[in-house]
Amino acid sequence: MKNVVILGAGRSSYALIDYLLKHSKENDWQIEVGDLDISLAQEKINNHERATAFQFDVSDLENCKTIAKRADLVISLLPAFLHAPVAEICVQESTSIFTASYVSAQMQKLDKEAKQKGLLLLNEIGLDPGIDHLSAMQVLDKIREHNSSDNEKAEITAFRSFTGGLLAPESDNNPWNYKFTWNPRNVVLAGQGTAKFIQNHQYKYAPYHRLFSYCEPIESKEFTQINESDDNYKFEGYPNRDSLQYRSVYGLDNIPTMLRGTIRRNGFCASWDTFIQLGMTDDSYKIENSDKLTYRQFANMFFKYDPFLSLENKLKGRYNFSDSELKKWEYLGFFEDKKIELSNASPAQILQHLLEKKWTLDPEDRDMILMQHKIKYTYQNKAKELTSSLVVFGDNSKHTAMAKTVGLPLAIAAKLFLTGNLHLKGVQIPIHKEIYEPVLAELENHGIIFKEEITEIDKSELYS
Amino acid sequence: MKNVVILGAGRSSYALIDYLLKHSKENDWQIEVGDLDISLAQEKINNHERATAFQFDVSDLENCKTIAKRADLVISLLPAFLHAPVAEICVQESTSIFTASYVSAQMQKLDKEAKQKGLLLLNEIGLDPGIDHLSAMQVLDKIREHNSSDNEKAEITAFRSFTGGLLAPESDNNPWNYKFTWNPRNVVLAGQGTAKFIQNHQYKYAPYHRLFSYCEPIESKEFTQINESDDNYKFEGYPNRDSLQYRSVYGLDNIPTMLRGTIRRNGFCASWDTFIQLGMTDDSYKIENSDKLTYRQFANMFFKYDPFLSLENKLKGRYNFSDSELKKWEYLGFFEDKKIELSNASPAQILQHLLEKKWTLDPEDRDMILMQHKIKYTYQNKAKELTSSLVVFGDNSKHTAMAKTVGLPLAIAAKLFLTGNLHLKGVQIPIHKEIYEPVLAELENHGIIFKEEITEIDKSELYS
Repeated sequence: MKNVVILGAGRSSYALIDYLLKHSKENDWQIEVGDLDISLAQEKINNHERATAFQFDVSDLENCKTIAKRADLVISLLPAFLHAPVAEICVQESTSIFTASYVSAQMQKLDKEAKQKGLLLLNEIGLDPGIDHLSAMQVLDKIREHNSSDNEKAEITAFRSFTGGLLAPESDNNPWNYKFTWNPRNVVLAGQGTAKFIQNHQYKYAPYHRLFSYCEPIESKEFTQINESDDNYKFEGYPNRDSLQYRSVYGLDNIPTMLRGTIRRNGFCASWDTFIQLGMTDDSYKIENSDKLTYRQFANMFFKYDPFLSLENKLKGRYNFSDSELKKWEYLGFFEDKKIELSNASPAQILQHLLEKKWTLDPEDRDMILMQHKIKYTYQNKAKELTSSLVVFGDNSKHTAMAKTVGLPLAIAAKLFLTGNLHLKGVQIPIHKEIYEPVLAELENHGIIFKEEITEIDKSELYS
Repeated sequence: MKNVVILGAGRSSYALIDYLLKHSKENDWQIEVGDLDISLAQEKINNHERATAFQFDVSDLENCKTIAKRADLVISLLPAFLHAPVAEICVQESTSIFTASYVSAQMQKLDKEAKQKGLLLLNEIGLDPGIDHLSAMQVLDKIREHNSSDNEKAEITAFRSFTGGLLAPESDNNPWNYKFTWNPRNVVLAGQGTAKFIQNHQYKYAPYHRLFSYCEPIESKEFTQINESDDNYKFEGYPNRDSLQYRSVYGLDNIPTMLRGTIRRNGFCASWDTFIQLGMTDDSYKIENSDKLTYRQFANMFFKYDPFLSLENKLKGRYNFSDSELKKWEYLGFFEDKKIELSNASPAQILQHLLEKKWTLDPEDRDMILMQHKIKYTYQNKAKELTSSLVVFGDNSKHTAMAKTVGLPLAIAAKLFLTGNLHLKGVQIPIHKEIYEPVLAELENHGIIFKEEITEIDKSELYS
């Protein structure tokens, strides 16, 4: 019997837990699900005979150790900053651990000891990071395979990859064209730091306050087909974190253009940018008297003192707000004289609190995941562009596309590992054929299917 | 005999060391000066019979302890982040310590133990912070003294205080109207974080990328007199750090308007802001191949990819650069194809490296310190504004106004302490009459003299 422990039973755990329970009998697995709120864990396992729920507090180190000791595999869905401390305990207790988060510096430090003990610390095996790596590596390797079979070498000149968690058209019914389909805090803080990428051999560094000036249209046949009845149904993308480091990870060390990014409905970036410009997404300090202020006063804090101008006129004057932009702010409640209900809160916490009242999925709302890789290359003296696109819909507000696309790669990788079909050791991310082939094949059975298209392009476009 | 140890013999130590040496015989002091570079310490003590120089490495903990043990007072001119660890050792060894830097959270933690041991940890006793506190408290207390003597209460409605380290008119001879008169790294990083202040009861939060949009003119008769022959010789000021916390420190808890700021020559803020907007002052990441790039390429990294536009045209297009703005960049060498000489450097390090080539004082250059408090208040049913202004010139590039105004308050406070005339205990800043009266009186003997003017204003202006 193998014992799998899942830590964290929040909104992205449904698909993961369902999959593992479904395959638990045939593989003789026992599934334990822990959460600070045990009722969340109980709800997810739904009295399954091979599952137990337990209360889990990450600060209870002794309990962490006991759990790591009795587990054959730990899967952590905890907030990202908790992965490394939990992984440390796992390594001490000789247990492998999987996460869907970016490899942190602390996580990387565990590589050597994990290898010595023959453990696998698999990270970035969710959606983004996760399915993006799996699918990118598959198409990149396919292009590169030309090189071994032919004399003519394929040369990859540009790699662009964008992912977005959005709303299905029928649920896309607020002025922002957006609702929270994953951790609201992460949405509010997204993009902080400096985005790094390279374009035609030129390194580009986009500080947070200028991130959205790098917004670009994201187009593909698959995306256009989602809602052809609406001419305004278009997408845009902005750079995400450090794309430079994935050049060597993907085996593209000398590639002239490399960019990873995030997809939003068109118009979202410009509207969100106003929050960034004003300083409303700042989480580094507290506003001492926040519970005594209205949202209007909160917004006014970020404008120059003016005894005459209203907030509405400041937005029109400083940020050229149109009526439709004003409606977005009105929809959120910025112009009502309602008090903020949080005391001693940071601007980011106040903004999140306001957004959560309006951007929460209704029970029957369906979300939608979009992903697109565009790879430019030359082969047989022709310039080509391969577009690989993914569209996944959620079923409702609980069984979301986000939960599916984050949870299933984790679950499938866990099955591979527990059945002895994954032989990697140490701190890893899923860029190896050994992982991407079986995981992508099984994802197709769950409706997660990339559509590919190769077109010929002008050689002048190869590097942009 | 009393033993005084000065840690750090950099550019701001001249006046401090000179003063202490001058008073060493009459008070029976022995002065020790330590620096990582012992020659700096030797230069400053200049073979004085009551002084010794020593090599000081803050990472040598044992040596730190020995020094703290034998000292009656330690004065730290080390980089600000080193004050707290050194102060910790001082407290362990029962030695008082003075610094010219802001009280950090770590420093504040030492308050209780320092009080128990009867030690004084005096901070913010330089120029800014330092003379600003001393002089502000003196005028504030003078206004408040009306309250005890009369029936009619004086009510303070607005406090604005600005300080700047600038160039004397005859040395103000580059297109930037600026050279480094203190730590270049601190100049490049100045303003990072969020500036906080209050204006007519409205809290204001200015994120770094919008700091200079809060720039305002700084005017006083004293400043105009410095160079009346030049119509363009004007000053501007921008908010500095957290002004809110000084409301309670200055006894102004319910004041409607409170702002502390930094003075620059007019035009400087807008020009420097371009560096901030582009992201060139970022110190949070390294550019891996920086030594292979030219300054032109470095600047281009922060603009959108464009195969046709030159850097000059990008600056004109995006930031509306005029010819005189372009000249500022040309003066620094951004348009030459010279390689950056630093490898793996942060944008802020690269920018600092370039600026240091151009913004270094010539030997005979004189610097200039400006300070101005503007306090609005009502008294006897009249609205008034008190303006208190300070202008201090340096002698040359070594004996700067900056070194005088940072070092003398430290030195005078040290004399008060060593002669038993300072009875405060714990972590303190110089806001008490016990300090500000004698220190300001002696600063006057050194030509550091505030000029005061009280004018009647319209009541509508009281809160702005």
